[in-house]
Amino acid sequence: MKLYMIKDKTAEALCFEHADGKLYKLSELGLDYSDMNELIEKTDLTHLKAATERFETANAASFSLSDVKLLSPIQPKRDVICLGVNYKEHIDETTHVEDFQHKEAAVYFSKRVSHASGSGDMIPNYDFVDSLDYEAELGVIIGRTVKNCSLEEAQSAIFGYTVINDVSARDLQFKHKQWFRGKSLDGYTPIGPCIVTADEINDVQSLSITCKVNGELRQNSNTSLMIQPVVDAIVELSQGLTLEAGTVIATGTPGGVALGMKPPVYLKSGDAVECEIERIGRLVNTVG
Amino acid sequence: MKLYMIKDKTAEALCFEHADGKLYKLSELGLDYSDMNELIEKTDLTHLKAATERFETANAASFSLSDVKLLSPIQPKRDVICLGVNYKEHIDETTHVEDFQHKEAAVYFSKRVSHASGSGDMIPNYDFVDSLDYEAELGVIIGRTVKNCSLEEAQSAIFGYTVINDVSARDLQFKHKQWFRGKSLDGYTPIGPCIVTADEINDVQSLSITCKVNGELRQNSNTSLMIQPVVDAIVELSQGLTLEAGTVIATGTPGGVALGMKPPVYLKSGDAVECEIERIGRLVNTVG
Repeated sequence: MKLYMIKDKTAEALCFEHADGKLYKLSELGLDYSDMNELIEKTDLTHLKAATERFETANAASFSLSDVKLLSPIQPKRDVICLGVNYKEHIDETTHVEDFQHKEAAVYFSKRVSHASGSGDMIPNYDFVDSLDYEAELGVIIGRTVKNCSLEEAQSAIFGYTVINDVSARDLQFKHKQWFRGKSLDGYTPIGPCIVTADEINDVQSLSITCKVNGELRQNSNTSLMIQPVVDAIVELSQGLTLEAGTVIATGTPGGVALGMKPPVYLKSGDAVECEIERIGRLVNTVG
Repeated sequence: MKLYMIKDKTAEALCFEHADGKLYKLSELGLDYSDMNELIEKTDLTHLKAATERFETANAASFSLSDVKLLSPIQPKRDVICLGVNYKEHIDETTHVEDFQHKEAAVYFSKRVSHASGSGDMIPNYDFVDSLDYEAELGVIIGRTVKNCSLEEAQSAIFGYTVINDVSARDLQFKHKQWFRGKSLDGYTPIGPCIVTADEINDVQSLSITCKVNGELRQNSNTSLMIQPVVDAIVELSQGLTLEAGTVIATGTPGGVALGMKPPVYLKSGDAVECEIERIGRLVNTVG
C-alpha cells in the first residue's frame, strides 16, 4: 500500500492509493489520524490493508496524484538517522575527501528536520552555502519500537520505505568536521512522494535508485550495492539504543553526487532534482 | 529561579525552589504543566517569577531536595545538539585523536536522547563498550524559536541553563567516524539537577565547571575558557536552521576526560560521576 500526505485546500489529510490509481482519504475508512506518526502508533497494517481492500469507492471523494499538493508523508519526530558513504562507488568517487576513507564500520550521523519538505517543495539556496549537493537515498520508517533487536525483529519492525533527498551543504559539512550542521539546514530533507508499506517490497536490497538533475542522470545504482544492508543497520543501531516507532533512517547514497564530479557541478537556483526509487516513486524538488 | 522535575510517589511534578530552600509544585500556583516543554511553550518567565515571589508557603506541601527522586528537568523533544572540543585544554589533551585536531570552526554533532536520565540515575555499562567516558557540560535550553538570529536575539532566546553529562563510548565514537552512535546510547545523557532560568545568571561565561569520579577531581575549568561562547554558538547554529523552543544544546567539555589521561582511566561499574557547575548545581550518576 502506498500512503500519501496531501494538502487539500487548507487541511492536510492522509491518503492511500487505491487499486484504481486514485487517492482516497483514510478518514473515508473511519481512520481519523492526524498524521503518519499517529497512524504508525495506532494502526495494525494487516487491518488497514484489509479495510482498504474492502473499501467501496462509489460514494467517496477521490484525488488524482497530479492534482494534489503532496506533503512529506511523515514529519520525523526526532532527527533523521543517516548512514554515510554506504555505497562502495560513493567511496571510490570521493577519494579526495579524507573523511570518507579508512572507514572500518558503518558511519552514522543525524540530520535535524524541524519540518520535512514534500515532493514539489523548493530546496532553499542559502547565500552562505557555496556547494549545494543532492543525495538520493532509500528511507526506512520504523513501525515498532525496538532495542537490541535480531535480524528478524529488525525486518518485522519496518513499517515502510520512502525516498529521501539528503541535501547537503558540502562546505558546512566539512568545515565543522562533524556533518550535522551541513546536513540540517531548513528544507534540506525532502521526503516522498509516499511511504510504501513494507509488505509490498519483497527484497528492499534490489531496487533501482537514481537521481537526475535537470533531466541529466547523475546517480544510477541499485540498493543491492549498499555496504550495510537495511536490516543490518537497524540491528547495529538498536544495540543499546532505542529506535522508537516513527524513527526515520536514511540509508546512504550511491555514487554520482556533485562532490564526486571533477570538477563538481553543484546545484544552483532553478535546478530540478528528481530522486527516484523503483516501486516507491519519484521525489521532485527545485532549487530556490 | 531553579526549576526541578521530581517524582512524587507515582506522579511526576514540576517544582520551583522557593527562597526558603524548599521545593513546591508549580501546580500550587495554578500552573498545571505536564512537563518543562509545556512550561517553556506557555509561560512568560516574568509572570512565573512574580507568581513564585507572591506565593504563600503556609498551606502548601513542600519537598526537601534530599528527599525527592529527581528526574531530568527536561525531556528533549529532538536530539540534543552538541559542541565538540569547545575548550582549548580539551584539544591539547587529545593530540593523539586525529578527529579533534585541525579544527577551523565549531564542531556540531547531535546525540539521540529517547529518555534523559536525572541526577541519581544509573549510567548503563554496556558489555560492548570498552571505553566509557564522562564529559561535564553546560547545557543551554532555548525558550523561544529562533532562526538567523543576532547576538541579542540569541541571548534573549535562552530560557535557562543546566548541567549535562555527555557520556561517550569512545570506541564506538571513533569506530563509526561520525560521533552520533557513540554518544547516543540509552542512558548516556544525564541532565540536571535543575534548570536555572537565564535571568539568574548574569555572565554564563564565568562559571566554574568540574567533574569528579569517586571524589577525585578530573575536570576543573571555567566556562570562560570556551572557544565558541554560548550566544555565538546559537547565532551560528541558527543560520538557516530553526532552533525550536525547547532545543537543548550541550556546549562542550573542558579538559580532564578519561580519553585525555595517559593511560586513560575509563569508567567502570560502581564509579560515581559528579558533574557540577557553579550557580546551577551538581549532577550525580553512578555507573551500573
